[in-house]
Amino acid sequence: MSKGIQVGDVGDVDDVKGLAQRAKQASHALARAGTSQKNDLLFTIADRLQGKHALLLEENRRDLKNAEESGMSAAMLDRLELTEDRLEVMAKGLCDVAALPDPVGEVSEMVRRPSGIQVGRMRIPFGLVAIIYEARPNVTTDAAALCLKSGNATILRGGSEAIHSNQALAALISGSLTSVGLPPEVVTMMPTTSREAMRALLQLDDLVDLVLPRGGEGLIRFVVENSRIPVIKHYKGTCHVYVDAGADLSMAVTLTINSKVQRPGVCNAAETLLVHQAVARQFLPVVGAALVQHGVELRGCPRTREILREATPTTEEDWPKEYLDLILSIKVVDTLAEAVEHIRKYGSQHTETIVTNDHRAAMQFIHEVDSSSVMINASTRFADGGEYGLGAEIGISTSKLHAYGPMGLRELTAQKFIVFGQGNIRI
Amino acid sequence: MSKGIQVGDVGDVDDVKGLAQRAKQASHALARAGTSQKNDLLFTIADRLQGKHALLLEENRRDLKNAEESGMSAAMLDRLELTEDRLEVMAKGLCDVAALPDPVGEVSEMVRRPSGIQVGRMRIPFGLVAIIYEARPNVTTDAAALCLKSGNATILRGGSEAIHSNQALAALISGSLTSVGLPPEVVTMMPTTSREAMRALLQLDDLVDLVLPRGGEGLIRFVVENSRIPVIKHYKGTCHVYVDAGADLSMAVTLTINSKVQRPGVCNAAETLLVHQAVARQFLPVVGAALVQHGVELRGCPRTREILREATPTTEEDWPKEYLDLILSIKVVDTLAEAVEHIRKYGSQHTETIVTNDHRAAMQFIHEVDSSSVMINASTRFADGGEYGLGAEIGISTSKLHAYGPMGLRELTAQKFIVFGQGNIRI
Repeated sequence: MSKGIQVGDVGDVDDVKGLAQRAKQASHALARAGTSQKNDLLFTIADRLQGKHALLLEENRRDLKNAEESGMSAAMLDRLELTEDRLEVMAKGLCDVAALPDPVGEVSEMVRRPSGIQVGRMRIPFGLVAIIYEARPNVTTDAAALCLKSGNATILRGGSEAIHSNQALAALISGSLTSVGLPPEVVTMMPTTSREAMRALLQLDDLVDLVLPRGGEGLIRFVVENSRIPVIKHYKGTCHVYVDAGADLSMAVTLTINSKVQRPGVCNAAETLLVHQAVARQFLPVVGAALVQHGVELRGCPRTREILREATPTTEEDWPKEYLDLILSIKVVDTLAEAVEHIRKYGSQHTETIVTNDHRAAMQFIHEVDSSSVMINASTRFADGGEYGLGAEIGISTSKLHAYGPMGLRELTAQKFIVFGQGNIRI
Repeated sequence: MSKGIQVGDVGDVDDVKGLAQRAKQASHALARAGTSQKNDLLFTIADRLQGKHALLLEENRRDLKNAEESGMSAAMLDRLELTEDRLEVMAKGLCDVAALPDPVGEVSEMVRRPSGIQVGRMRIPFGLVAIIYEARPNVTTDAAALCLKSGNATILRGGSEAIHSNQALAALISGSLTSVGLPPEVVTMMPTTSREAMRALLQLDDLVDLVLPRGGEGLIRFVVENSRIPVIKHYKGTCHVYVDAGADLSMAVTLTINSKVQRPGVCNAAETLLVHQAVARQFLPVVGAALVQHGVELRGCPRTREILREATPTTEEDWPKEYLDLILSIKVVDTLAEAVEHIRKYGSQHTETIVTNDHRAAMQFIHEVDSSSVMINASTRFADGGEYGLGAEIGISTSKLHAYGPMGLRELTAQKFIVFGQGNIRI
């Protein structure tokens, strides 16, 4: 399979610019496409994912072979691998997106103004969205599906480890676009994963409307530092469970365990437990035993360790850390205000929950914590587009501009103002 | 009057960072403030604007004297000047913002999910907003008022010509903050207008949540190129009136005249008239005569000039131009699609209007033009926060992310997710 143009020397910027220009031009055709044409497209891609699985698995094996030779870990190899089952899951994902309502064209808040004009807001696609991500090839179809349904052309830049899988998936999507009468450049895979090409892409603020980086902190930092295009960040999740003086302690144990151990490797798992000093002596031994039973390693502040001898001491590095593992840092706080301050200082604006039956404490926490998801008496693990009813998510934004928290189809659109008059003039 | 710290040498970055850290710290107190405390503050500032007018006018005279000596134009001097009447208008603006509903804390779309949790969205301030603008000192109080009401601390960076006026206004605002029990750093004026200090400010993406540049293209370009902080752009307004084949030509004359001449120096005035070829022979002589009568200089494409001899030839530079003056460029187009394409190529995504009684043409225009305001049979001059019912506007965004078109109080806030449970866990 051809890798298309190679971007890697002096011609870089022009090549990337040409690619972005063609994608932008193609975006206009997609923006005009109706819901049924977009759904036909999603079904076509789903069909071909299963019909062409032999070719896809072959290209994926090339990536796996290179990755093995370069000594990739077993966990990472597993993320990289495509199987017939995984292709079926990807196909199902495309059909799920087809079933979601089309956000484009929705008109809201239409009112008549004293001047006689009617003013409302209409939802429109951004135009061209760049998605920069790392090794998992299933992101290629997931991201393309959400962008297609929301009417956005996409430039995808996947990880170098998955280049052959991604090129094969992109070719399949482009073929599907052609078959439903849309330009193949509506979904464009960057033909290279070089940082130079990415840097060139990130300068094109006249062509690309939005950049979504998904991956490690290094990648996101690189994008933020080099982009003239607006970026919606998806940083890490250092999520907190705060057990208040007014907590139902049995509920607090349940919520702490679920938040930490139900799936420790994901961003909405809890990393730190904050406990009000009024309940620490009663609560910590019980939750500590339950956590240890679930295989969780405990690290604690000095006051925690007075009660929980098995906890090792925390260092300043523990508090902002996203362990993504069965490790929990624990701190005893004097007041709710101290918990809020700790979250503000060390949190990542992802998800925090308070366990309490004290209404005033619950309201204070909900108002004063400004993370993207703030919960009362619920597991942090609920912070998810599917759980929130968004249908599917392209990621979880931890920056406040435009979208904050799980982002679904609606968050991939903008709103313009529309005005209906009958010859009205301004006086 | 002290100018506070001076930023201009090696200490730059640290000084600006310290200032931003104090402003961010202060933002938490403002975010907790209730609506009545914020309104008290706005009324206090309004009172003092009138009570301390002698001091303010004296500082303003220092700016005027420097500006005159440096040869500033009469029009610019007029924009820079403060008078008792203008201070009264500024005070009235503050009271108007106090009268608007407080967007902070609004909860919407709360639903119960199958898991049993309740999920909704709550409106919150961004935190710390930087506003970078040019010479007019009234922007200082207008921008501060909207940020205060929406719960955002502000770093203001005004133009060097207005530095004494702005410092005096900022001192007055800080004094008012103290008097209502809020930290004076909630509104912080940059003590210097140097580009180095601005560049240092624009690197602080961990402290500043949003940058709003208001001014000429050079300033905005500088901000976009140097900022790691999300930017909402307020570019120019190259607005179009498109007279369709299905237009009521008498209405088309009225709307063209109003869009062009009612206030030619502002961003929502029309700069280009596009005319469908089917009506050009009938329409152009009538509208041309009316425009000339209003003192408008006409520039036309070759087909326009066959009909309107008095129009001078347009060049490629005319089409993207924001004249901000009594000049209009005119182009005859073959189809609505050509008009849409022209707007896409040369427009600035501000405001476009179609004049037509053909429903299909109207709907095509509304859907295919993706400017921030798209109108049917209405003057472009309506593109304004006040006219749209937003109450007051901090500017008009021409980039799609977060806010597109006139921005009011609501557009100065974000939405976080809130979740209410009764001990719900994820299974």
